[in-house]
Amino acid sequence: MEKEKIKQAIGILNETDTAADLWMVIDKESEVLTDPIMDFILGTGVTWLSFFLFFKTGEKYAIIGNLDVEKIKRLNLFDDIFPYKGSPKDDLLKLLNKHNPQTIAINYSIDSPSADGLTYGKYLKLLELLDGTDFKNRLISAEGIIAKLRGRKSAEEVRRIKQAIEVTLEIYDKVTARVKPGMTEKEVARFITGERIKTGYAPAWEEDHCPSVFTGPQETGAHSGPTDNVLERGHVFNLDFGVVYEKYCSDLQRTWYILKEGETEPPQEVIKGFNTIIKSIQLAFEALKPGVKGYDIDKIARDYIVSQGYEAFQHALGHQVGRSAHDGAALLAPDWERYGKLPFIPLEEGQVFTIEPRLYIEQGVVTVEEMVVITKDGAEWLSEPQREIYLIK
Amino acid sequence: MEKEKIKQAIGILNETDTAADLWMVIDKESEVLTDPIMDFILGTGVTWLSFFLFFKTGEKYAIIGNLDVEKIKRLNLFDDIFPYKGSPKDDLLKLLNKHNPQTIAINYSIDSPSADGLTYGKYLKLLELLDGTDFKNRLISAEGIIAKLRGRKSAEEVRRIKQAIEVTLEIYDKVTARVKPGMTEKEVARFITGERIKTGYAPAWEEDHCPSVFTGPQETGAHSGPTDNVLERGHVFNLDFGVVYEKYCSDLQRTWYILKEGETEPPQEVIKGFNTIIKSIQLAFEALKPGVKGYDIDKIARDYIVSQGYEAFQHALGHQVGRSAHDGAALLAPDWERYGKLPFIPLEEGQVFTIEPRLYIEQGVVTVEEMVVITKDGAEWLSEPQREIYLIK
Repeated sequence: MEKEKIKQAIGILNETDTAADLWMVIDKESEVLTDPIMDFILGTGVTWLSFFLFFKTGEKYAIIGNLDVEKIKRLNLFDDIFPYKGSPKDDLLKLLNKHNPQTIAINYSIDSPSADGLTYGKYLKLLELLDGTDFKNRLISAEGIIAKLRGRKSAEEVRRIKQAIEVTLEIYDKVTARVKPGMTEKEVARFITGERIKTGYAPAWEEDHCPSVFTGPQETGAHSGPTDNVLERGHVFNLDFGVVYEKYCSDLQRTWYILKEGETEPPQEVIKGFNTIIKSIQLAFEALKPGVKGYDIDKIARDYIVSQGYEAFQHALGHQVGRSAHDGAALLAPDWERYGKLPFIPLEEGQVFTIEPRLYIEQGVVTVEEMVVITKDGAEWLSEPQREIYLIK
Repeated sequence: MEKEKIKQAIGILNETDTAADLWMVIDKESEVLTDPIMDFILGTGVTWLSFFLFFKTGEKYAIIGNLDVEKIKRLNLFDDIFPYKGSPKDDLLKLLNKHNPQTIAINYSIDSPSADGLTYGKYLKLLELLDGTDFKNRLISAEGIIAKLRGRKSAEEVRRIKQAIEVTLEIYDKVTARVKPGMTEKEVARFITGERIKTGYAPAWEEDHCPSVFTGPQETGAHSGPTDNVLERGHVFNLDFGVVYEKYCSDLQRTWYILKEGETEPPQEVIKGFNTIIKSIQLAFEALKPGVKGYDIDKIARDYIVSQGYEAFQHALGHQVGRSAHDGAALLAPDWERYGKLPFIPLEEGQVFTIEPRLYIEQGVVTVEEMVVITKDGAEWLSEPQREIYLIK
């Protein structure tokens, strides 16, 4: 897949809004901290300060520490490899002088963590190496390049995400069959983790809150681990969970209601809350297509929920999914400062998003999270959507 | 262990050569890329741009996105937590104005990857948040703080490293018993990986070259994965391997000789090469103590090997080990540019180092890697040293 992604990257360097003569990825001691893009373009890490140069013309070079040579050679990704013992400076300047790029994209971004893989220390080192040349005035952010590269999923990437979704939904089916009132959130989490381990797949995010389990009325936000709270009859309870299938993640939420003795269906306010969430997801889904802004999609779901008398959710409506559960740049989010400009990046075909509104009722948290892919003129569900609240008897 | 490490950090802020009024750790979307120090001081990650402030006075605060609150609260590490929805700016400036730190250490370093956890984008965001205040002129590198924090191992940290070493050496014993001429490097690697999986521990670095296996004469450097090369009688062969035990790594190399038919011991040149490596390790070990420079230790081993008629090894003599196989700052290394100033940082009690010289002979690569801890006035072996070349019949 690295060859495919490098080819895609060079294509992106030739598009008007993300044009750059050179895209340069810099990494060092990848085991300690690595630029997240390394896994896409190399599929492995390095030891010493290394430069991977991708020119708009299609030429590709690597400058690496001498003991990494064999490993990088075997990848067969570069036109030429320049190993060094002392300093990468000579090889770097030679390549830059030869190609004389007018713009050099490097991986930093204020808003998008996926595109912010260059550390400040490595940036300073780069300036030191380029000192006295004009190249240091030609550095630009590779934010747009990486947003496209991570966002635009190939057929193979979508296939893997679908597999991760399938594994997750199968585990959710088992929850409906096996979870009973009287269990604690932690017991439910252990059940899910046990089922996940049987599948052999890793959790899509930190295991301490993958799954998250929330039962009954609460103030608690998302992103916290399961507690000793007991699942009681009359509770709404929900899960947030995902797995990694061949490096690609799922991220899905489902909501259940635990019937009280004598009940055959949930009380009206539970049904109303649940249907409000489902409808808001549907409305957002219908508005998705290339070119629209995430801000507008978020607003559709947010406004609908508020129009039904609920408080607006305190987070973004949805994020991209890929090798990380939170992936890519463009975001379905309100214009809060913490989201920077991400809600205003136009959506593109091939991006995979979650849609995950949330509302609070007396019985608990109602939240459903689906996954969709943007198509040429709309969007498609990747997850079979939850249409009715699941019941536990 | 997070409480212990935070306490240690605050002590370090009060030492003359690493004095700072405030140490500020900044993280965001930790699942995508995280500052490696986060695992020491929080043991978990965050979603939104977060600030963890440790004042010299011992006060500790967290500014985090609202949905992370529950998780961070449960850690019980901070005097106060400030959750935000829109921007962390107000809380950050309020805390800074109240304490008015004259120096603010942040995690960047040109030379030391372990101390270079702040990305360039997050650094720019920090400048934006501090714009118009004098605090942006008070930023300094936390390199020295982190070097001490990661370097000085507590008794518990050393215990875990020793466990990782023990697991590794037990697997090496099995190699001596089970590996036979005719096997390929890849087969040896599969055997080791199989044994490792039985123990339940993860590899200490990327599985594709953990273990590294090198048999017979070759040009190949370290850090490359096993090949289809066949272990033949008359070969020197060696392994580089380690595991992670409760987050702490081992990193050890051993060398074997495969006896030819009729041989009862290796040829003289193999014995000479092996003994040269062992002696160079012993000489370096004997010179280790707090206050000496890694440069001088590397030189002892390097000069000895050259004095015996071999070429000097093309890498550092040794590195620190901890949560990463390559850890900490101070390095036993020559003054090559790629090592920056790391070879000149005085060693400290409690640091754990490898010693791993290497030389090439006709029969293969001779290399042994031991692990030691710096003590009050010397050093102690953590690994039972290899004194004689292991023989395969």
